[in-house]
Amino acid sequence: MDAQKIVNGVKVDALFGTIDAVKKAPVIAKFKFRANNKWINCGHNRTTIKNFYGTQQDHPHETHFELDADEPPILLGEDKGPNPVEYLLTALAACVTTSIVYHAAAKGITIKSMESRLEGDIDLQGFLGLREDVRRGYEQIRMTFKIDADVSDEELEELMRLGPTFSPVYDSITQGVPVTVTLDKTSSRAAAA
Amino acid sequence: MDAQKIVNGVKVDALFGTIDAVKKAPVIAKFKFRANNKWINCGHNRTTIKNFYGTQQDHPHETHFELDADEPPILLGEDKGPNPVEYLLTALAACVTTSIVYHAAAKGITIKSMESRLEGDIDLQGFLGLREDVRRGYEQIRMTFKIDADVSDEELEELMRLGPTFSPVYDSITQGVPVTVTLDKTSSRAAAA
Repeated sequence: MDAQKIVNGVKVDALFGTIDAVKKAPVIAKFKFRANNKWINCGHNRTTIKNFYGTQQDHPHETHFELDADEPPILLGEDKGPNPVEYLLTALAACVTTSIVYHAAAKGITIKSMESRLEGDIDLQGFLGLREDVRRGYEQIRMTFKIDADVSDEELEELMRLGPTFSPVYDSITQGVPVTVTLDKTSSRAAAA
Repeated sequence: MDAQKIVNGVKVDALFGTIDAVKKAPVIAKFKFRANNKWINCGHNRTTIKNFYGTQQDHPHETHFELDADEPPILLGEDKGPNPVEYLLTALAACVTTSIVYHAAAKGITIKSMESRLEGDIDLQGFLGLREDVRRGYEQIRMTFKIDADVSDEELEELMRLGPTFSPVYDSITQGVPVTVTLDKTSSRAAAA
């Protein structure tokens, strides 16, 4: 009996167990992630994350996560939380990092430390509707890693590439995702009157 | 002297003042948002948001925001925070909401309450690298609003459309953003040895 194999904190046997289970029954890999948002005032609003669907059932999180967003004073808010485009960088940073960690673990590569810094460019003429030729969103995002890992100098870059290769958020942001936005008329004021 | 005009918590005079200032000197609309991430263990990592650049200068946030990401147990983590793809939904929810609020304020439309719920589909066969024809990221995201606002029933949907029309995160996610990921070789282990 081998001791449980753990690399980068990842239970590698459980990871390969998951991969085998998905190969046998791909339907268990279909996940639905969820969030609820409530506007509070001006640029301040709160997202609550309670549960998700996967392996053919709903899963509650152990605690409900509450995430406040706001704008800084220069953008007319009160700085009660990161702003939405800073949350987007957070999603990207966390996902590329986790993707490197899990895929390195699957390859048996130990990571000693990893940090990244991100910067993205937005021209607010887009959001303000002042110019149609300036996009509303990020024009570009730059992400730079510092990694100390148990690989040769030559392999360090290859290790890092596991992130953009497998990260769901990197894929979502670079390739784009269809988003439908609809009004629940039966629950909005029109129906409540 | 008029009293300061505030709609939806937005200082409308300040908003129009910003628009006028940007029209005169578009360079002040160029913003750079930033985030730093540090890996902790397994799916757990922490993003810190300290400052951003805009109006031709750096701006510190009033406090440093720290955002922990983790995976739930079924994805081999310890559920110490929302996971990265849940942060992506948070960014989208917050941004579409704020975009509606600000643009409604500019039009003088009072919003009484606003909530949204989001759900996105991911097939983890992509992340696990099991099928090349399954994308790593979200296949689709659905966002549904309940809005109570000071407009006619017919105008409620038009009010909601201000969100996807102007939101920087909606634009980033639906249209895609170029992301560069690079290794800081001078600071990584290779150079530190």
